[in-house]
Amino acid sequence: LLDQVDDWNFPIFDLAEKCDGSILSHLTYRLFENTGLFDMFHIDRSRFICYFRALENGYRNIPYHNRIHASDVLHACYYLTTQPIPGFDHYNSLACKIPNKAKRDHVQGNMDDSHGSESFKKEADYGYLATALPALELVALYIAAAMHDYDHPGRTNAFLVATNATQAILYNDRSVLESHHAAAAWQLLLSKPEYNFLSGLDAAEYRRLRFLIIEAILATDLKRHFDILSVFNEKVSKETSGSGFDWGLESDRLLVVQMCIKLADINGPSKQRNLHETWTDRIAKEFYEQGNEEKSLGMPVSPYMDCNYPRLAALQESFISNLVAPLFRSYADAGLMPNVWQPDSKEMGNMSNKGGDSQPNALVKLLINYIEENYEYWVKRKEIEDGLVEPDGLERSRSATEDIIEEEELLSKENDIPSSPKEA
Amino acid sequence: LLDQVDDWNFPIFDLAEKCDGSILSHLTYRLFENTGLFDMFHIDRSRFICYFRALENGYRNIPYHNRIHASDVLHACYYLTTQPIPGFDHYNSLACKIPNKAKRDHVQGNMDDSHGSESFKKEADYGYLATALPALELVALYIAAAMHDYDHPGRTNAFLVATNATQAILYNDRSVLESHHAAAAWQLLLSKPEYNFLSGLDAAEYRRLRFLIIEAILATDLKRHFDILSVFNEKVSKETSGSGFDWGLESDRLLVVQMCIKLADINGPSKQRNLHETWTDRIAKEFYEQGNEEKSLGMPVSPYMDCNYPRLAALQESFISNLVAPLFRSYADAGLMPNVWQPDSKEMGNMSNKGGDSQPNALVKLLINYIEENYEYWVKRKEIEDGLVEPDGLERSRSATEDIIEEEELLSKENDIPSSPKEA
Repeated sequence: LLDQVDDWNFPIFDLAEKCDGSILSHLTYRLFENTGLFDMFHIDRSRFICYFRALENGYRNIPYHNRIHASDVLHACYYLTTQPIPGFDHYNSLACKIPNKAKRDHVQGNMDDSHGSESFKKEADYGYLATALPALELVALYIAAAMHDYDHPGRTNAFLVATNATQAILYNDRSVLESHHAAAAWQLLLSKPEYNFLSGLDAAEYRRLRFLIIEAILATDLKRHFDILSVFNEKVSKETSGSGFDWGLESDRLLVVQMCIKLADINGPSKQRNLHETWTDRIAKEFYEQGNEEKSLGMPVSPYMDCNYPRLAALQESFISNLVAPLFRSYADAGLMPNVWQPDSKEMGNMSNKGGDSQPNALVKLLINYIEENYEYWVKRKEIEDGLVEPDGLERSRSATEDIIEEEELLSKENDIPSSPKEA
Repeated sequence: LLDQVDDWNFPIFDLAEKCDGSILSHLTYRLFENTGLFDMFHIDRSRFICYFRALENGYRNIPYHNRIHASDVLHACYYLTTQPIPGFDHYNSLACKIPNKAKRDHVQGNMDDSHGSESFKKEADYGYLATALPALELVALYIAAAMHDYDHPGRTNAFLVATNATQAILYNDRSVLESHHAAAAWQLLLSKPEYNFLSGLDAAEYRRLRFLIIEAILATDLKRHFDILSVFNEKVSKETSGSGFDWGLESDRLLVVQMCIKLADINGPSKQRNLHETWTDRIAKEFYEQGNEEKSLGMPVSPYMDCNYPRLAALQESFISNLVAPLFRSYADAGLMPNVWQPDSKEMGNMSNKGGDSQPNALVKLLINYIEENYEYWVKRKEIEDGLVEPDGLERSRSATEDIIEEEELLSKENDIPSSPKEA
């Protein structure tokens, strides 16, 4: 199965069944092997295995945010960084201002160097994101993906804040889960010498790796979704004069790393229907468990979390159109999306790419196509769902995403709760 | 002594001596009494006392970041919000866009209402910041000031990060101390029913108060100093067209609250020499304790923390010119600084204020004057200090503040540590 890691629709649930609890350590090991990262960073393999076994054991047995999801996000990050991107050449792409010295460092320290894997042979008309990122940033992305939902309790940030959960108090209601995932995964790493597979790094590398991993994990807080996406859009926009994207800048490359883990984290709708539906069923199950706890606590049930009033299609339709599709499209428009040319239409594709902003028709547009197909599927299912649950056929005035975002933001900065000062 | 709270140079160390450990609870109680906040928010006084006694007990007996400092910051916040500001009228000040409804809420819910204290009688030509802030925001500021350094270990964020301290791991190297102060003070509040003096608030008020207190405490991280100051300068700048400051906006008022606690937190140089020097000696002592620990750990000693190489004057000269003076000047330029007219020169002051950006000469400019005097004092002392420690008289090429900021930022985002990828 692990030979299929270069396939976007990697059969992750089959692997989970085969590995029986150790899917994350198996997959991480394989991907580090494939990319030559063990040797590059003098990583002790037995410590590496010890740590990732402990890490996967710290993922709880809950329907969605479990070690299979962590493995899935890791796989997607691997795919986005190592699979061929048509026309990608980071020296010339975007608003490239890469200095000569940085160029040399990049070429020496990253996946441009062949590490025995066929997938890194540069083919004409294709490039690889891994060639644009120093290896330290690549390894940070992979480790962050594996760590990113460690010890997830199967409840949302909004729920933890509303119930004054210990962790909400500890993290001052700010990115409660994400802060905990990062901190707890690092605590684990540092808890035993036999876990610390990073001891081969020098102090500066260690510090920077730690910083990048934390930044990547904290970027998965969906409350920051629109902020991160708009900074990215601003950077890569062809209309922007002056600023623009710069592969020589650490902060710009970090933004790509953050986009990468964000895409990976909500990649469900960009996969084959069977994979997407399995994930959808799982998130629904986890939501309903929270809804049931809310009921038992006498709280109002959060949107889409009432098992007696399932609105799965409405949730997915809105989730895709408001969050997933704009994110993937921005990433594709920036020329970062792995893809393949239609057989025998390479030249045509090249032609139509010139001067045009959008992807040429001759590209398969694998991920974007899945998103569009899955979206249409949910739109149709929503019609049925609406018919079932709202037989009067009245249009709902609020979108599902509005509800999700509001739920997340209810107790935060962005929300302008009236201060209603007491009348003296 | 507590009758002198309206005096900027409040004899805080005399009070500390008298109160013997309970200075913070005594002062907080008095200020809540003075401002009518107990009644306004239905605060149970015995719970209030229980909590603030527990809070002050959680401040450690260290030279600087102790309960006297917390009391000092609270006092400064009280002073800035309740003392007369010449010409301040928030309905007309800055780029006022306050809507009619908000105006009414403000007037009903805040210090415009007389609560038996003489200090709130509005006099001609003077205004009070407390009249521009809903009472909930005022109470948040005071509570935040009292909480803001709770359980401070007497070490800097940079030290905690560099030594992989438990709290640095817990808070992912981000605002480690400030996150801990806020979280631990709230944990304490919620740990026993007899501490929870906020139970009289309704749910929305409680949520908003909690949000404001956390925002205020986290704003005291000096790493965010220039960010916060530049947002404020941008907002209040007379040149800015379009945006501008809006007392009707919660986010703009929060910015003033954050500026307020920031001024209060580094108010030492804006006080009489004896108070300023006592604080200076205390921070030096705390710095040297860290320096000694760094030596014992075999680490390089942080700038200004080596007791064998004291550079107190250099530290203060740079601290004032780079951090304190620009902060206080921006605040004064925005027309928010309490002040008094020179006796018999009120009319002249009004005249010269018209059309001019700077403060009229006829104002006493109490705080700014102290800063200037203290700055001159340290400049002279630095000449002596340089003569002593650098007898060759060579000019130092780096400023003390550069070192402080760099120390704080060494392991952070802002610092561009070369990623030095391994050579394969």
